[in-house]
Amino acid sequence: MIAPWVWRAAWLLLPAAWLLHRYTHNDTLVFFVACASLIPLARTMGDATDGLAERMGPAAGSLLNATFGNAAELILGIAALRHGHVELVKGSITGSILANLLLVGGGAIVTGGLRRRRLRFNRLAASSSVATLFLAVVAMVVPTLLSIGGNPRYDPSLLSEEICVVLILMYALSLWFSLRTHREEVGSVREELHATPAEAQAAKKPPHPNPPPVARELVRLVVAAAATAIASELLVSALNGTVSTLHLPETFVGVVIVAIVGNAAEHSTALMFAHRGDMDVALGIAWESSKQIALLVAPVLVIIGILLGTQMNLAFTRFEVVALGMSVVALALIALDGESNWLEGAFLLAVYAVIGVGFFFVG
Amino acid sequence: MIAPWVWRAAWLLLPAAWLLHRYTHNDTLVFFVACASLIPLARTMGDATDGLAERMGPAAGSLLNATFGNAAELILGIAALRHGHVELVKGSITGSILANLLLVGGGAIVTGGLRRRRLRFNRLAASSSVATLFLAVVAMVVPTLLSIGGNPRYDPSLLSEEICVVLILMYALSLWFSLRTHREEVGSVREELHATPAEAQAAKKPPHPNPPPVARELVRLVVAAAATAIASELLVSALNGTVSTLHLPETFVGVVIVAIVGNAAEHSTALMFAHRGDMDVALGIAWESSKQIALLVAPVLVIIGILLGTQMNLAFTRFEVVALGMSVVALALIALDGESNWLEGAFLLAVYAVIGVGFFFVG
Amino acid sequence: MIAPWVWRAAWLLLPAAWLLHRYTHNDTLVFFVACASLIPLARTMGDATDGLAERMGPAAGSLLNATFGNAAELILGIAALRHGHVELVKGSITGSILANLLLVGGGAIVTGGLRRRRLRFNRLAASSSVATLFLAVVAMVVPTLLSIGGNPRYDPSLLSEEICVVLILMYALSLWFSLRTHREEVGSVREELHATPAEAQAAKKPPHPNPPPVARELVRLVVAAAATAIASELLVSALNGTVSTLHLPETFVGVVIVAIVGNAAEHSTALMFAHRGDMDVALGIAWESSKQIALLVAPVLVIIGILLGTQMNLAFTRFEVVALGMSVVALALIALDGESNWLEGAFLLAVYAVIGVGFFFVG
Repeated sequence: MIAPWVWRAAWLLLPAAWLLHRYTHNDTLVFFVACASLIPLARTMGDATDGLAERMGPAAGSLLNATFGNAAELILGIAALRHGHVELVKGSITGSILANLLLVGGGAIVTGGLRRRRLRFNRLAASSSVATLFLAVVAMVVPTLLSIGGNPRYDPSLLSEEICVVLILMYALSLWFSLRTHREEVGSVREELHATPAEAQAAKKPPHPNPPPVARELVRLVVAAAATAIASELLVSALNGTVSTLHLPETFVGVVIVAIVGNAAEHSTALMFAHRGDMDVALGIAWESSKQIALLVAPVLVIIGILLGTQMNLAFTRFEVVALGMSVVALALIALDGESNWLEGAFLLAVYAVIGVGFFFVG
Repeated sequence: MIAPWVWRAAWLLLPAAWLLHRYTHNDTLVFFVACASLIPLARTMGDATDGLAERMGPAAGSLLNATFGNAAELILGIAALRHGHVELVKGSITGSILANLLLVGGGAIVTGGLRRRRLRFNRLAASSSVATLFLAVVAMVVPTLLSIGGNPRYDPSLLSEEICVVLILMYALSLWFSLRTHREEVGSVREELHATPAEAQAAKKPPHPNPPPVARELVRLVVAAAATAIASELLVSALNGTVSTLHLPETFVGVVIVAIVGNAAEHSTALMFAHRGDMDVALGIAWESSKQIALLVAPVLVIIGILLGTQMNLAFTRFEVVALGMSVVALALIALDGESNWLEGAFLLAVYAVIGVGFFFVG
Repeated sequence: MIAPWVWRAAWLLLPAAWLLHRYTHNDTLVFFVACASLIPLARTMGDATDGLAERMGPAAGSLLNATFGNAAELILGIAALRHGHVELVKGSITGSILANLLLVGGGAIVTGGLRRRRLRFNRLAASSSVATLFLAVVAMVVPTLLSIGGNPRYDPSLLSEEICVVLILMYALSLWFSLRTHREEVGSVREELHATPAEAQAAKKPPHPNPPPVARELVRLVVAAAATAIASELLVSALNGTVSTLHLPETFVGVVIVAIVGNAAEHSTALMFAHRGDMDVALGIAWESSKQIALLVAPVLVIIGILLGTQMNLAFTRFEVVALGMSVVALALIALDGESNWLEGAFLLAVYAVIGVGFFFVG
């Protein structure tokens, strides 16, 4: 485990990125330092959300966690939309889902499976994750297909708005399912099923003897969110320079680089739990996070994008949609039976590798 | 439940449609009244088929039911083909399958799941339905893909005919499977697995003390079929006017409006059984009806269309094929484990909503 | 069973093909005789590999079998690449996978299911086969999609090479899985899980009282491989003439004719075991062979093709990729529950028929 002082020191990456931006004009450097600075910020937001959640009772707390779990992705997305980087936003949505399902999920299965012959996990959680993610794929296929055939009736914004309403509604229903009607069944899992690393760790610790006051947690949350907004601005402002220096397509930067950085925290926590054999927690982190991005962050970004007057909608590139569809099917093939082994984890990682290499070659 | 006199009164919709057609020339009105008149007619055909089936012993009776279960769709399809409305016919085939799988199936699962934590149903019936529906998807993908790439060797009619033979053969085999070789296993279900509402209700009633004479049932069947043919003619003749008045694409009318009307009877019966907790019956109605349309009604319509000299074949629009493929996969994701819950039903309804919204925007 | 003298006599097909090639110039005749001559040669290579494997202990023997199991396909592929018939090679890869999964697998299930109500097989073997085959589909979808959109960054050879490395690595891992870490579980199967008919038969016989000396087996292997190379040369040299005489597209010849001939041996052995009710062996033959072609033969051919300077890569035609994707999904739908029945076998055969008819019409 990384010592607490390292996490605190990592906050210094943000002022470093700002200084580099101010004095060097080396966009690539600014971009990567700003990327790195997001990791501790995302973690702090997770910790603060979790601290607040602990004080609010299980139902309201879970709701808070579920809603703010991917706040960093949302803040970054808004900054990118404000500068009109629609491709980056779409790419980072696709990439976050791919990274969570294939990289985090596959890595967790391999880690857990190295010392265990057979890994078991909650089938109900697996099948409801697969179903909701498949709905997200349908929601992207429909506008993407319509945008390909030159279609006079097709109104991208209107169609995307309507679909976004369905997605957000479905997200609310899936919360209702796991927090109310089927709490006991998903429950034994649910208790330790956390979207952010901080939550996950918190659940393992005995409750704080002296929990920090609510006010302090709120201040932490607000400060971290503000810092995330600044880091996002720096990252986005350096994007054009980075893309042209490195000869990388904007979609690749979103799908691979931003997505891996944005989910680094999830990744390390999931692997830690997988190592201990807590597959329900490890896979829960990967799946809940994917679900939240697909059914909550993505539609909220689309609606914000439309309000901001950008070209944001749910029509992704053909390659993004096919990649997402294939990874949800890959997940379904290995997860629906509630059992796994290291070979299936390696299979998910191989699917990620093939898709990632493909994104590098997309113009 | 709707009282019998309402059903009898609903027969008056047919003369009403005819009078409107004769005296008002308001195509939209004629269209919707003719649509509505199909609901009681389809029900009467179902009742009469069922009355005959009851007299013929279980095997021959099931065969009769399985073959005439979607007679209304077939009669309407022939009328539309005679007027060259190929898009409407294809759309109503796609739409009937979508409506049965997603709307009827999803509605039944939600209804059944509101008061029950976990719904169970026959896995063998589920997996054989999914497999046969997937075959239908393959049968549509092949000609559709070939029709897209400008392909000199491609002969749409010949290819479609050959595929139709495979589909009809497979339908015959699936009847053989459920009526002969695996009767006991699908059996406990099969007894109450009915394609039309009338059958389903009949199965729940004790056998008639005085069953109506065969001759009377035959007359009812012939009269209802003739009336359906007239309603279909009225509906089709009003189609062009309706489409241009409402600014709706013909495919949308077929996929959404005609399909929902044509399956209204199935829908109400399936929900009734789901409410009682008879999920095998409720889902059986939805799945058997989809299967019958995909493997029997569609190929028969293609063959009739080719005989009539129209451009009918199995090459659907790209969007129709993708929509069908996604809904069969959605069904597979939730049904193959033989268990469900209300969230999975809501998921099917959400997939239907997204696809339905999409069809509205297809030119 | 076919008597041994028939198999020996069948070796005469090779000189016959050569004489026809030398004296008649009837390309079609040469093509089909050379095709037929591959059947006994493939069998002899299988027998010899098996004889060697028997002497080398289980682990090294299985490895030898797994690596040389599809040697005939590989030799034929190299000959075709040397003459620049890239379409034929791609087609025969697609076709071998389709034939094994759908035709051999479906045929085995129907044969086994005619006398048994319910067929059971090892679920772990089924799910790992489905997963690895799905990876192969992803590996073909990515370059195919990129090759469609005119993409300036896209470098077909480089992308295909990188993906081939992932595939070969995954093949090695899947061997490690079934020969080392999960030997006992796949084991009861594994013992009798053979890629070639000879292996399968050998496993059923008691060990040879006087096993033939290693040197003799090595000579048989080398002679059969050399003869296969000659037959492949004859077949490939007659290809252009055959294709233009019969008005058949090169892809169809590869997908249907070459693939069925190349897998004739697997087919007959699988049916034999299915008839006896050994479904694990029968389906194992079909699945192992598909897996080996997808994850080993195909990438090796791509790398050889690139070394030879041909246009070989992993970008298949759209129809080939969709056909493969659909057949892997079809397999997943019926196999993942570890149970089957004759209707599911008929379903696989029907999918093969529809796809095969489609390939006939692809230009």
